[in-house]
Amino acid sequence: MFRHDKQLLKEVRVDKPNPNYANMMQEQIGGAHGELKAAMQYFSQSFRIKDERIKDLFLDIASEELGHMEMVATLVNLLNGHQVDAAGTTAGNIQASVQSGLTPMLANASGYPWTGAYMEDTGDLAADIISDIAAEQRAKVVYQYLYRQINDTGVREAIDFLLNREEAHNTLFRQAFNMLEETGSLADWGVTQDSKQYFDLSTPGQFFDQNNLSNPKPPKFIIPNQQNQQQNPNQQNYTMAH
Amino acid sequence: MFRHDKQLLKEVRVDKPNPNYANMMQEQIGGAHGELKAAMQYFSQSFRIKDERIKDLFLDIASEELGHMEMVATLVNLLNGHQVDAAGTTAGNIQASVQSGLTPMLANASGYPWTGAYMEDTGDLAADIISDIAAEQRAKVVYQYLYRQINDTGVREAIDFLLNREEAHNTLFRQAFNMLEETGSLADWGVTQDSKQYFDLSTPGQFFDQNNLSNPKPPKFIIPNQQNQQQNPNQQNYTMAH
Amino acid sequence: MFRHDKQLLKEVRVDKPNPNYANMMQEQIGGAHGELKAAMQYFSQSFRIKDERIKDLFLDIASEELGHMEMVATLVNLLNGHQVDAAGTTAGNIQASVQSGLTPMLANASGYPWTGAYMEDTGDLAADIISDIAAEQRAKVVYQYLYRQINDTGVREAIDFLLNREEAHNTLFRQAFNMLEETGSLADWGVTQDSKQYFDLSTPGQFFDQNNLSNPKPPKFIIPNQQNQQQNPNQQNYTMAH
Amino acid sequence: MFRHDKQLLKEVRVDKPNPNYANMMQEQIGGAHGELKAAMQYFSQSFRIKDERIKDLFLDIASEELGHMEMVATLVNLLNGHQVDAAGTTAGNIQASVQSGLTPMLANASGYPWTGAYMEDTGDLAADIISDIAAEQRAKVVYQYLYRQINDTGVREAIDFLLNREEAHNTLFRQAFNMLEETGSLADWGVTQDSKQYFDLSTPGQFFDQNNLSNPKPPKFIIPNQQNQQQNPNQQNYTMAH
Amino acid sequence: MFRHDKQLLKEVRVDKPNPNYANMMQEQIGGAHGELKAAMQYFSQSFRIKDERIKDLFLDIASEELGHMEMVATLVNLLNGHQVDAAGTTAGNIQASVQSGLTPMLANASGYPWTGAYMEDTGDLAADIISDIAAEQRAKVVYQYLYRQINDTGVREAIDFLLNREEAHNTLFRQAFNMLEETGSLADWGVTQDSKQYFDLSTPGQFFDQNNLSNPKPPKFIIPNQQNQQQNPNQQNYTMAH
Amino acid sequence: MFRHDKQLLKEVRVDKPNPNYANMMQEQIGGAHGELKAAMQYFSQSFRIKDERIKDLFLDIASEELGHMEMVATLVNLLNGHQVDAAGTTAGNIQASVQSGLTPMLANASGYPWTGAYMEDTGDLAADIISDIAAEQRAKVVYQYLYRQINDTGVREAIDFLLNREEAHNTLFRQAFNMLEETGSLADWGVTQDSKQYFDLSTPGQFFDQNNLSNPKPPKFIIPNQQNQQQNPNQQNYTMAH
Repeated sequence: MFRHDKQLLKEVRVDKPNPNYANMMQEQIGGAHGELKAAMQYFSQSFRIKDERIKDLFLDIASEELGHMEMVATLVNLLNGHQVDAAGTTAGNIQASVQSGLTPMLANASGYPWTGAYMEDTGDLAADIISDIAAEQRAKVVYQYLYRQINDTGVREAIDFLLNREEAHNTLFRQAFNMLEETGSLADWGVTQDSKQYFDLSTPGQFFDQNNLSNPKPPKFIIPNQQNQQQNPNQQNYTMAH
Repeated sequence: MFRHDKQLLKEVRVDKPNPNYANMMQEQIGGAHGELKAAMQYFSQSFRIKDERIKDLFLDIASEELGHMEMVATLVNLLNGHQVDAAGTTAGNIQASVQSGLTPMLANASGYPWTGAYMEDTGDLAADIISDIAAEQRAKVVYQYLYRQINDTGVREAIDFLLNREEAHNTLFRQAFNMLEETGSLADWGVTQDSKQYFDLSTPGQFFDQNNLSNPKPPKFIIPNQQNQQQNPNQQNYTMAH
Repeated sequence: MFRHDKQLLKEVRVDKPNPNYANMMQEQIGGAHGELKAAMQYFSQSFRIKDERIKDLFLDIASEELGHMEMVATLVNLLNGHQVDAAGTTAGNIQASVQSGLTPMLANASGYPWTGAYMEDTGDLAADIISDIAAEQRAKVVYQYLYRQINDTGVREAIDFLLNREEAHNTLFRQAFNMLEETGSLADWGVTQDSKQYFDLSTPGQFFDQNNLSNPKPPKFIIPNQQNQQQNPNQQNYTMAH
Repeated sequence: MFRHDKQLLKEVRVDKPNPNYANMMQEQIGGAHGELKAAMQYFSQSFRIKDERIKDLFLDIASEELGHMEMVATLVNLLNGHQVDAAGTTAGNIQASVQSGLTPMLANASGYPWTGAYMEDTGDLAADIISDIAAEQRAKVVYQYLYRQINDTGVREAIDFLLNREEAHNTLFRQAFNMLEETGSLADWGVTQDSKQYFDLSTPGQFFDQNNLSNPKPPKFIIPNQQNQQQNPNQQNYTMAH
Repeated sequence: MFRHDKQLLKEVRVDKPNPNYANMMQEQIGGAHGELKAAMQYFSQSFRIKDERIKDLFLDIASEELGHMEMVATLVNLLNGHQVDAAGTTAGNIQASVQSGLTPMLANASGYPWTGAYMEDTGDLAADIISDIAAEQRAKVVYQYLYRQINDTGVREAIDFLLNREEAHNTLFRQAFNMLEETGSLADWGVTQDSKQYFDLSTPGQFFDQNNLSNPKPPKFIIPNQQNQQQNPNQQNYTMAH
Repeated sequence: MFRHDKQLLKEVRVDKPNPNYANMMQEQIGGAHGELKAAMQYFSQSFRIKDERIKDLFLDIASEELGHMEMVATLVNLLNGHQVDAAGTTAGNIQASVQSGLTPMLANASGYPWTGAYMEDTGDLAADIISDIAAEQRAKVVYQYLYRQINDTGVREAIDFLLNREEAHNTLFRQAFNMLEETGSLADWGVTQDSKQYFDLSTPGQFFDQNNLSNPKPPKFIIPNQQNQQQNPNQQNYTMAH
């Protein structure tokens, strides 16, 4: 079950209302790489996870992403200001002015409603985690684009926080990935000739190094060695306290 | 530009028509992790790639995925047989019997039309490639599910080939990923405190090892060492010949 | 921010797996009148509510609906069992067997992915609350249909609880509605002749009593009188305790 | 069956073309709370209604909503003017300039095509009518937003008419609701303890008055008393005459 | 404006309820080539037509298609019977049993909701009419598939009528097409070399006769000569009379 | 199988970047009448075609349309320039600036993702070809709108080529149509009285000439006579050579 705490995960503010910025930030509420997608994906995937550590990780991050969505929605709400003004909205969709009465929407920057088609749940833990790593990488990219284009110190502070949190999740998902056994979609990797061939179908081209296909292995991430990590013994589990 | 060769990338056959199997295979034509999605994703991403080697790789694989889609569509066409028969289709959608006249459709197993919302193009090469690795992993999972449930030797032969090709692509994309500089979404990874915290928001739970967050690094894949690879010097670039 | 408690809002169980029942219950995860829709709708609407009491009510119910979604997803997970089996799924979509690997999906019973197009956020409190009352009424109807068709004592127990909770929300939303001033979309109701006419455009027909249009008033609900309510002084606020 | 009369339900005009206003008005053709949605919802619901008076009411209003859609489409057509001009369209979608050649589209203000996912048909008369009351309330809100932002006397006249008609429908639907027996989704309301509890899941907060849950009743609307209504004996059934 | 006549365009009946047949017939309510699509397409296109004869034709047919939709919805309603029964629905979607309470839905046979993306309005009369001819041809095909698979004399009678009406519309649209001047998308046809080349991109293949490209002309339909037509002088305009 | 040639079907260039023009051109990548739709439609339809000449034609054109899509995507890529700039994008969607990092997207000008719902595959050759003729006519119209509004010599050159190619395809599809036997949806045309009636449902109106319905025939196109064509004996099959 979920409980809601009226305090935001991290407080946000904006310099001033700006409906175009509001639209741009909508991307991270209801867009393909946004917070609702992340929250729902990890939450859905968690149902069939048996390893309690990984299941806990997924639910920790899913809950956090819901809190991120709330932060972004609060930003959008502030940026939308107090007047419906479709004519003053020159970038992106105008639904806030004609449909939602400035309420943050579950839609992307151009007005396309969020869709469950964004979900990437496969029931295979390796495929799910690597999908989540990719999702975090994309989420970071979108925040980078937004940061670059939104000239508002409040919004940028929030983006900076959110972007770094996606990095943290990315790191954690990679660690979880490396804990996996070579079962499911990782099993029997590269044992057939078909998996070692290269089909050169686009021409002309600088062909890729074929040698690399000779001894294929399933995905595994490089993780910083333990020694380095133990140099930071003071790193604490940050339990939210208020 | 694209050219079409009437020979399939690999010939396919089925034991006998089976509209339920046809529906199941539809998943890999028009589903979220299917061949059209893969082809379109890599093709779209290729437009902004500057590294000619990686661009070539993307276009080689995109072209191959179109050929895969053709193979799967040929299977669906054969499995659909010669009679529209909605009543005899007890699993999945019945559009082949009431709409497409047994023509393979750009829709998933349950009739949801393919959507550009499946695309994961970010313009950031790291995010794009890791998304593609994830896509290949998911595609393999779907083929595994299909293989397990479809008791038809012809379909299984085709799935075996296609599944192994997804592995090959996965391997190649990982190699491409490791060629990337630490720029774009890989730059400045883990330099803030925000990127090193763990928010324990789902309770109770076996908490994750926090030490791992102390020295975060951007994603990088382990690739089998060159020495092992050079033990297979005879591995040749397979250029399609017919 | 949201916190997750690994205990369900109310524990659930099923008699035995049944993929058709799983599909049917999918309707209340990702369908038009399902729990995700309810949670997201009330959560989104809450952003612009100024009356703190009503805002709190919306967030209480939104949080509860997320917990309902988790209960339904747990039921679907149990009903999906342990084997992908598209051929054994004769009612509704087969995505669990070919796409999600039995993971509960954000889609309805027939496989249509959840969409933000279900949201009914208007930024007008009267319109929002009456939309929520209607949503609760529809949610109850869907649970009634499911109860009637699902012959599994565990699922029925869960549905019975969820259905009654929708009633409780419905009651609470009506009370909140009656607290509203006649502003926004409730203002100036029925002051023009246009709002008092009846256009008899479908013929022949037993025409509706026109007198009722002579003195139109904005919506207001009948609420049981206080005296009756005070006859139940022991009714306590139930704060979840575990 | 439907017949079309080339005379509009009420004639419309615009001061001058304005593609941004055209986009805004698109919301009420093809948006979530627009006229097509209303017409189709009431028309669909009417099929299973047994009470002939209510069925007639639904079909009268459904027909009128089709006429409203025609009025709005005529406005959009006039506002679109005579030149495709995407660059001159700075608010909302540009499909009129690149796709429909200025033809009014079945899409909302930002270009999202109308979808049957907007429908709220449940086969339960109480749930259907209360959904319709809510739909009318939302439709009014959208018209209020449009009125406020569109500075064109012709468009405003039309909106004023349409907005008041939604009020009339709202009033009529409420009267129809109060005619219902306590069957279907209105039966056995609030008879379990589960329906009388309050889950305080968002904290901190000013909690809602729990007493109100002690004796829950199904929805019922307050209707102006008959005596007042009979003070307007001259109110006539307005049968369209031309 | 539209008026509704409670008499169907043509009365319908079914032998007995059959939820699978109901699903199949759903295709012609809310499917890509169904009656709602036809009605909405012609109605939308009519707004910018200047030739009053063609405009009238479009509105006549659009109105008739609404009446067809009503006939098909009545069939679906009858076929859905009186009991929600998802388990007994083995072909197509189960939304009637879990969502709409047996109410005919604006969705296709497999549950995909109708979408404005089906519309083919271009604002160019030639493109619009030829799109309508194509739409009528597809609608006929779907009715043929349905007729072949539905073993119910009542449904077949209705299909026979509807199918023949699509033929009549097809004929009428072709006549309207031939009335067009060579303007808009018909102007300057085939005047460049680019329009006369053949790109042989799929190999090997029996190449198409290139000569046919030497002197391209815009589309024009062969219409039976007047003399033959005048052999049926008694053909009357059938004005609906009841 | 498909092969890719890194040379474009025809080279393209733009005068200078212009994100609004980029959005407009998006319509022909991912819009309802765009190149992806054309390629996928003809490719899908080809699977069930038995006449090898027509099948070859479909595959030739499908391949060419993929090449067209590549041309348009190259234009969009060039027009998008090098800076994400949502604020500088005043017409159409802003996804290139917040989601795709300037990568051409599979979406239309206003950001609606491409959907398989655009497909018009019926399995009936007459219906398929006439749908393709209509699709080519609509594609030409869209190119005409784009040409008129885009003041960039490079883009206009490309549009001119593409527009003329759609004409060529249109011509070829008509020739293929006329090769068909009167089977499938062309059989038994106009043999019932129902197919010869005119329902005058929109009033008042200048009624269409009823005589034309007296002797209905299935569609057939007028093709320029052979003699004229043979006056251009030098017209060669243009086989792409590079």
